[in-house]
Amino acid sequence: MKYLRFMVGEETLQGVTDGIGYVKEIRGYIGGDYQLTGRQLPLEEITKYLPPSVPTKIIAVGRNYRAHAEEMGEEIPTEPFLFLKAPSALIGHRENIVYPVESSRVDYEAELGLVISRKGRHIPPDEADSFILGCCCFNDITARDFQQKEHQWIRAKSFDTFAPCGPWVDLSVQPFDLEIQMYRNGSLVQNSRTRDFIFPIPELVSFISRYMTLYPGDIIATGTPSGVGPVETGDLLSVRIQGIGELQNRVIREG
Amino acid sequence: MKYLRFMVGEETLQGVTDGIGYVKEIRGYIGGDYQLTGRQLPLEEITKYLPPSVPTKIIAVGRNYRAHAEEMGEEIPTEPFLFLKAPSALIGHRENIVYPVESSRVDYEAELGLVISRKGRHIPPDEADSFILGCCCFNDITARDFQQKEHQWIRAKSFDTFAPCGPWVDLSVQPFDLEIQMYRNGSLVQNSRTRDFIFPIPELVSFISRYMTLYPGDIIATGTPSGVGPVETGDLLSVRIQGIGELQNRVIREG
Repeated sequence: MKYLRFMVGEETLQGVTDGIGYVKEIRGYIGGDYQLTGRQLPLEEITKYLPPSVPTKIIAVGRNYRAHAEEMGEEIPTEPFLFLKAPSALIGHRENIVYPVESSRVDYEAELGLVISRKGRHIPPDEADSFILGCCCFNDITARDFQQKEHQWIRAKSFDTFAPCGPWVDLSVQPFDLEIQMYRNGSLVQNSRTRDFIFPIPELVSFISRYMTLYPGDIIATGTPSGVGPVETGDLLSVRIQGIGELQNRVIREG
Repeated sequence: MKYLRFMVGEETLQGVTDGIGYVKEIRGYIGGDYQLTGRQLPLEEITKYLPPSVPTKIIAVGRNYRAHAEEMGEEIPTEPFLFLKAPSALIGHRENIVYPVESSRVDYEAELGLVISRKGRHIPPDEADSFILGCCCFNDITARDFQQKEHQWIRAKSFDTFAPCGPWVDLSVQPFDLEIQMYRNGSLVQNSRTRDFIFPIPELVSFISRYMTLYPGDIIATGTPSGVGPVETGDLLSVRIQGIGELQNRVIREG
């Protein structure tokens, strides 16, 4: 089952779907008590997909696939490499990524996103699963030129629209060995499997929670495989993850 | 007038005060429509001060006082140096700062905090004032050893309890030339004025909003003056800012 937030006209709704055909509206909290309202509508009637989570923070993992660390000329990390993305950068499925006028090199980065279901600190690896609501597609858009010139990656990673996420949170998929792909204008440019993580999901959740409390809705972007590259205005980017679905966003020029 | 969030027993309340004597309970949004409920109580009856804002992000400014940049051996920046702190690090007045077992060097950093009142992007400097709800005391607690060894400062700056903020948001003070001080166990260890900012407040707000949308409640920590130094378990840290008040937090050892 997949959980999504969306709009129909001016109305903001949440629902569940199997990803084809219909969405069933719910009310309440998908990670706890919720009810079906009895209303259902065809997915085509959705006028806007919202980011499927409203996080208090987005924690991203750098260099979590060996081949990507190598392509960036970086050493294989001995512990997870973390950074923050501002939640203001989130956009949903089919919203536009805005190529900022200040940048001349913006890259796609397909990632598996994890959504946290409940408050946790010092989570043991073998309990991590019970803190994960589900998984989504995430695109860690990066202004590579800013990343190279600024000390801390706030602008590189947190320009508005630099965190496409969705289309929904899959609540049941087992994330440990999924095919993850990025298509740029229909061409396959990243192609890996989540079993190639340097730090597997239970270790990531446990590691992060040693330092900071995780809250419901928080998103962990688990790192990108090799094959990152630049985008151009007009590009259609698609993050496809086996069992989850496809997150599509078009790149437009600012202004 | 000062706005605060607090608890009395198990009850979470918000109110306004002039900082001495009584707090008057309000309901609604302090940055828009709100009403006095008619209830008032002595400040001493507050059992817990909450962080006076619930931000979607905390944007901190590094090296915004010339003398601090020099003491850190850094060049004077030509544009604001930004980083993010996780909102999960926030604590209120009189809550304890937890010295993590993983760190052996934790520093205080007295800062003026700005709280955003309304959504804004591409804010011109001369309109910045209309996007600021008010000012608070902020302590940008930093694990200096992590800051030196990790590439991105997420753990250095975002351990739980590393963002003391409060006791309230002053809604009327003019922030452009205020005395800002840090007292460690009653000894003055930082002492400057906000007129010594390298980048003044209107430029900071405008600069940040070129890259990312600011939302109501977002906090901008405007940088620390010279005199930063280590804390020890048991220390009482006090950020005092003229016209705003005093933020006190004690350092305790984890566990």
